[in-house]
Amino acid sequence: MDKEKNIIDKYFKPLAKNKESLHLENDAAFLKDKKMIISTDMMIEDQHFKKDYDPKLVAKKLLRINLSDVAAMGAEPYGFFLNIALPKNMINPWLVNFTKGLKKDMLLFNLKLFGGDLSYSSKIFLNATIIGKTKKKCHKKNIAIKNSDIYVSGKIGDAALGLSIKNKSQFMNFSINERTYLTKKFMLPQPRIELGKNLKGLADFCTDISDGLLRELSIVAYQSNLQANIFLDKIPVSRVAKKLLNSEKIKPKRIWEIFLSGGEDYELLFGIKKKNINSLKKIKNISKIGFFSKGKGLKIYDKNGKEINFKKVGFSHF
Amino acid sequence: MDKEKNIIDKYFKPLAKNKESLHLENDAAFLKDKKMIISTDMMIEDQHFKKDYDPKLVAKKLLRINLSDVAAMGAEPYGFFLNIALPKNMINPWLVNFTKGLKKDMLLFNLKLFGGDLSYSSKIFLNATIIGKTKKKCHKKNIAIKNSDIYVSGKIGDAALGLSIKNKSQFMNFSINERTYLTKKFMLPQPRIELGKNLKGLADFCTDISDGLLRELSIVAYQSNLQANIFLDKIPVSRVAKKLLNSEKIKPKRIWEIFLSGGEDYELLFGIKKKNINSLKKIKNISKIGFFSKGKGLKIYDKNGKEINFKKVGFSHF
Repeated sequence: MDKEKNIIDKYFKPLAKNKESLHLENDAAFLKDKKMIISTDMMIEDQHFKKDYDPKLVAKKLLRINLSDVAAMGAEPYGFFLNIALPKNMINPWLVNFTKGLKKDMLLFNLKLFGGDLSYSSKIFLNATIIGKTKKKCHKKNIAIKNSDIYVSGKIGDAALGLSIKNKSQFMNFSINERTYLTKKFMLPQPRIELGKNLKGLADFCTDISDGLLRELSIVAYQSNLQANIFLDKIPVSRVAKKLLNSEKIKPKRIWEIFLSGGEDYELLFGIKKKNINSLKKIKNISKIGFFSKGKGLKIYDKNGKEINFKKVGFSHF
Repeated sequence: MDKEKNIIDKYFKPLAKNKESLHLENDAAFLKDKKMIISTDMMIEDQHFKKDYDPKLVAKKLLRINLSDVAAMGAEPYGFFLNIALPKNMINPWLVNFTKGLKKDMLLFNLKLFGGDLSYSSKIFLNATIIGKTKKKCHKKNIAIKNSDIYVSGKIGDAALGLSIKNKSQFMNFSINERTYLTKKFMLPQPRIELGKNLKGLADFCTDISDGLLRELSIVAYQSNLQANIFLDKIPVSRVAKKLLNSEKIKPKRIWEIFLSGGEDYELLFGIKKKNINSLKKIKNISKIGFFSKGKGLKIYDKNGKEINFKKVGFSHF
């Protein structure tokens, strides 16, 4: 058999032992399920990661950024398609580790590999198309409702700090433990699957924060024809992030800009109507950060209620 | 609104006016259908096409190579997801034409755009994940049956000649009309949707020829634990291809090697049991090229029944 087929047999067939993949003997998969969501996300060398990143972590991140979309829809992880293009000389060493990482997170998130495509290219290109199962309800519209409260899950900004460490932007003095914590937050986001499911029927909109809180919220405000108002002192940040805000070396405004525009948090951002707020009581690890009102755009206030203007709203690839 | 959002609103929202895409306001699509096939294929700059190729044709080819997988499954085109990464300076001029081509073939093949991802990269990277609807039966297994006859659709080898013209391999003297014909066969393959559907329940295997007839047939023979036997004089070639075979400038064996290993035909390759052969009578544009027997591998015979050995079996990216 030829080499391409060998690579598929060696690395991917063991991961695709499911009926739907047709054991990778066809180019397509066959899905019998009734209601599903499908989403697709890319990771490109030098754009989203560097060649020297651990392929195990790159694999996990590829799945997790796609799983974050599944979470935002309130769906259950089901399976995925994988496109990989990479330089000839990287195939064996890189794919061994990449598929190891893939396998771990496939077990962790109960995901099936359904198929994909493989090619050569001078830079590494990765894409996953993920499928989530869902019942009747899912977060179909990202339209907020006036007077709804704005919530986020987890902590905001750690991933942006992790990226700056990866990029060797050494303007911050972090301990080894802090660096490990922050780079892990960047490389291994936690898709909020359970939260996404719990919010079905409660949230009026739900999206994941991939390109920075400010950008995602601006888009929701724009789509909803409403004004989003958020309060800096309500935004949940980690102990490490807090330490940086209090360090006095860099202006807090500059640090907030990194936290809120840096992207890659993969936390959920959602809106809750006042009457639904009691239903949130059992849900942990979420924070109310503001509300929607009549008007347009996004307004950010400091602890004294003074409006703050950031230059950069969020991360855009273009 | 920021630039990335603007690009999506400008170029892709007009193409995604369907419920399932959720109007591109979410990262995922929502599919209610029961039985569908999904397949995914990449096109990478310098690997599958050059930067200076007409973006309209690149768009059409991207859809068609994916549609060819839909045809091979005997399914009906339904919709697709699109991943595009390209250099910053190419966005506007390139995407205008790319989306024009996309729109034309979306109408022609009745395809919906469901979603996708957009990014920046130094080289153009394209990927489509296509969804086809199907009823109970589809070509699920690529396993041939002993004594079955081997068939192909259309003409074999024109696309490989078209590619060599595109690559400026000028060892052949073609007229302008011939060059236009051949490059069109390379850039605009014809997915055999109707044939794929008609073969359901008739063919014991059905696959599309993307990486060369010899490679695809070798894979089927290997998976089926059978020997594939084909006859050069039964392989359907175009008038232009025939002219080249008779030109006496290049050894026919070298030309056959290009035709059978060059890839990109996107014709269907399928097996038919003797008892089903009568059912094929109404189907046009197909040719019987050989049969399966006990044994292993692929054997190719010339018109005198003499076995021919080709060095290169097919196109593999690795």
